[in-house]
Amino acid sequence: MRSTLGWEAGGRTGRVRKTRLERRDLRPHDLAIRIDFCGVCHTDVHALDQHDGAARLVPGHEFTGVVTEVGPEVGDFEVGDPVAVGNIVDSCGQCPMCVAGQENFCHEFPTLTYGGVDRHDGSTTLGGYSREFVVRDRFAYHLPASLDPAGAAPLLCAGVTVWEPLRALGVGAGSRVAVAGLGGLGHLAVKMAVALGASVSVVSRTADKAKDVARLGADQLLVSTDEEQLAEARDSFDVIIDTIAAPHDLSPYLRLVAMDGTLSQVGYLGAMTVETMDLLGGRKKLTSSGSGGRPGTAAMLEFCAAHGLTADVEVLPSSEVNTALDRLRRNDVRYRFALDLSDLA
Amino acid sequence: MRSTLGWEAGGRTGRVRKTRLERRDLRPHDLAIRIDFCGVCHTDVHALDQHDGAARLVPGHEFTGVVTEVGPEVGDFEVGDPVAVGNIVDSCGQCPMCVAGQENFCHEFPTLTYGGVDRHDGSTTLGGYSREFVVRDRFAYHLPASLDPAGAAPLLCAGVTVWEPLRALGVGAGSRVAVAGLGGLGHLAVKMAVALGASVSVVSRTADKAKDVARLGADQLLVSTDEEQLAEARDSFDVIIDTIAAPHDLSPYLRLVAMDGTLSQVGYLGAMTVETMDLLGGRKKLTSSGSGGRPGTAAMLEFCAAHGLTADVEVLPSSEVNTALDRLRRNDVRYRFALDLSDLA
Repeated sequence: MRSTLGWEAGGRTGRVRKTRLERRDLRPHDLAIRIDFCGVCHTDVHALDQHDGAARLVPGHEFTGVVTEVGPEVGDFEVGDPVAVGNIVDSCGQCPMCVAGQENFCHEFPTLTYGGVDRHDGSTTLGGYSREFVVRDRFAYHLPASLDPAGAAPLLCAGVTVWEPLRALGVGAGSRVAVAGLGGLGHLAVKMAVALGASVSVVSRTADKAKDVARLGADQLLVSTDEEQLAEARDSFDVIIDTIAAPHDLSPYLRLVAMDGTLSQVGYLGAMTVETMDLLGGRKKLTSSGSGGRPGTAAMLEFCAAHGLTADVEVLPSSEVNTALDRLRRNDVRYRFALDLSDLA
Repeated sequence: MRSTLGWEAGGRTGRVRKTRLERRDLRPHDLAIRIDFCGVCHTDVHALDQHDGAARLVPGHEFTGVVTEVGPEVGDFEVGDPVAVGNIVDSCGQCPMCVAGQENFCHEFPTLTYGGVDRHDGSTTLGGYSREFVVRDRFAYHLPASLDPAGAAPLLCAGVTVWEPLRALGVGAGSRVAVAGLGGLGHLAVKMAVALGASVSVVSRTADKAKDVARLGADQLLVSTDEEQLAEARDSFDVIIDTIAAPHDLSPYLRLVAMDGTLSQVGYLGAMTVETMDLLGGRKKLTSSGSGGRPGTAAMLEFCAAHGLTADVEVLPSSEVNTALDRLRRNDVRYRFALDLSDLA
């Protein structure tokens, strides 16, 4: 086993503390990675807040770093390569979803980067709030050299989660796109949709984001409490990427969707209630998506490199991770924290 | 005013009785129609069962007949033309939906064929369970001569309701389509999808429909209570047309939808509950649709004429309308009743 340092849930406190943890010895297809930056995702907050203290919990599932060692069967990576890892580290590889390159929808359920169960030794996976990671080569991605590794880290979860529906729904030049919620996922959805050639609007509760909306390349801000503004925008978007992380009324957003358009809700909302008439009044579609498959993730990184696109990150030393978590609970970040793990030594 | 005979709700009995009713004198753009056949739709049963006895209720919103008189500004119809009318007889004509030819989604709400409010004189519209009808020319359709007028009547509501999602979702050669529920709408969805070149499956509660399924041109019957069969068919349909008229659990049907595919629910289910995971596990879409617009209805009739496609109807004299309604309440019809109105004299 390999020893490293990381940040682990401290019982049921919602906080993490520095810990020593072990990584497995490299299997033939494994890479060892020195993690440099790890994004702080809402999922991390949920996992910590719901943690029962039983199994070990080291959050973190969007990170970048450098390859430090390769197993004997690894062909596509060399020591020194910049790499990135997202929220999936394995899948069955056999089911129709895996065969189609949508390992995120694996029928046998993909192995999550933390809180998952390793398919070979049955151990609980421990995430990227740590200095070293060991991962099967199929689930590591070459990080384009032009991308800032801190700003690129959130692409691996937040980024691909909005990228996949944008692509699946055919967003391109001329598409009318709205992004609901301007946080970690939302700001990346705006940047990507703009880079894809769409005209983009943001729907947000607060009017104080107008400057940011313009800076991100969007055409307008719709304030979700302004009923007149929403009424004017009725039936006008081909695609809405709804990144609002908490359960909410879908009706006002479905009303904004154009005839035959789609509201794509990203993130887990549990049981949703949908009024038939909100769909029926324009043959509108509701869909849901999360994370991405291997080909989509690789394509997203290429696209981001071509467009110089990364997340807006506030980089904090990993010793300030609890501050980052608390501020994320208050949505006090524009738009994503990236932990600098170099202080773990 | 013009006097005719029809069948009208008798208080809160759920039944209809013979009645004398008046039709308006022709406006410049109106047609008078002698109704020959009128389909009996589930909506008629609901309307009768929920009727509070206040306003007059004459059901019927899918019928065929012959033009008997035309207003002075009517250009496209002549006396003697076979015609058909569906569940909409007017709309605002100005909103984006009307401009797009989707009068069924008119922002000002379309004028329904019965139980609606006439946009000119404010009267309650009375439907097709009668011998004569007066309608604005825009909302009458030429009935192709090759189509049996009894079997064609249900095309105007049941038919166009399943036609529009099939077209909007791009169903054609190679599409994998399932139809849930094999009643008036379902059997037309099967015929149309088969005629469009799709491979079609039927999902039904009862195994005794296997013969009919084959006769309608479908490839297979999936029995919805056979969990093993459903598990085998997981993720395998690009489009599911869900015609089940009562509220039901959508999960088993969403599981049958393929990656990026769509479940199109037709008919009004009120507030639906959808599990995020049922959509998320394959970026599946849920949509809802009902009725059709003018261009879609005209195109549907042309398509049906080209393919010799009509509903399977059991024709009853209109004097047996209460029997038809009772049997429809028990789903005891394969697959639609058409009332013959010639006994009203």
